Amino acid sequence: MTPHVQKLQINYKTLEEFRKFRENGLEELSMLEDLKADLVEDHTDSPFYGIYEEGKLVARMSLYQINEKYDRYFEPPTTYHELMKLEVLPGYKGKGYGAQMVQHAKTQGLPIKTNVRLGAQDFFLQLGFKPVKYDPVRDRGENPYVWHPEA
Amino acid sequence: MTPHVQKLQINYKTLEEFRKFRENGLEELSMLEDLKADLVEDHTDSPFYGIYEEGKLVARMSLYQINEKYDRYFEPPTTYHELMKLEVLPGYKGKGYGAQMVQHAKTQGLPIKTNVRLGAQDFFLQLGFKPVKYDPVRDRGENPYVWHPEA
Repeated sequence: MTPHVQKLQINYKTLEEFRKFRENGLEELSMLEDLKADLVEDHTDSPFYGIYEEGKLVARMSLYQINEKYDRYFEPPTTYHELMKLEVLPGYKGKGYGAQMVQHAKTQGLPIKTNVRLGAQDFFLQLGFKPVKYDPVRDRGENPYVWHPEA
Repeated sequence: MTPHVQKLQINYKTLEEFRKFRENGLEELSMLEDLKADLVEDHTDSPFYGIYEEGKLVARMSLYQINEKYDRYFEPPTTYHELMKLEVLPGYKGKGYGAQMVQHAKTQGLPIKTNVRLGAQDFFLQLGFKPVKYDPVRDRGENPYVWHPEA
């Protein structure tokens, strides 16, 4: 089967796979603790999406839905997805998995905001994202890019 | 003179120096545009601090003051500094400049919150920072660590 994007579930296997990714911190640790303490069920929905190749998780991202009442990026304000932790494992880059993930995020029916990392500007520009006008109070050093389905 | 931390001013020379740093994005571009459009004066205060070695900016960070009414990290709520963009140029690492910058931030009289990057956890733990209890709604994938003068 062609590798495709799928929603990830919180379980021990997924959390073990997460350990291979660089951006693995308090969030993943908290998920593991919740699982151990039976605070979440095995297979609970997570904000993570990923691509498997031969049974191995090789790319992932998270999508958080932000309610329009907290929106400070779109005019008029809208509920949108914050895209974070987009990452493809070393050895699996150059296969278009990153773009495949972002394209999948676009199919979710909401505008998208992301904080673009060093060197990833061209990647997001090619995918139709645009830099916002920098606002020091709102952005405090972040590098926000947005995408809107109607743009 | 021993390299020491100093507050940076927004001027063409500083912004030219910023181009050597990896985390150079919309914020720095916006500062440059403001300078060109005479929206800020040459030598305006910036949120940036840095260390010069032989006239060259080799390390920097930014400190944003967050008012206690927006505080969601400390109990009771307090005005604090958000530490961002801590970066030492390649070739100048291993000289303690990163720690020198964080120590300087601690002397500013406020608690500090930062989002710890991949691999920097031990650095911040050694400097007395502590991971917070992860809150998915507040932290959305970030990796917040805090330091309080009284802890």
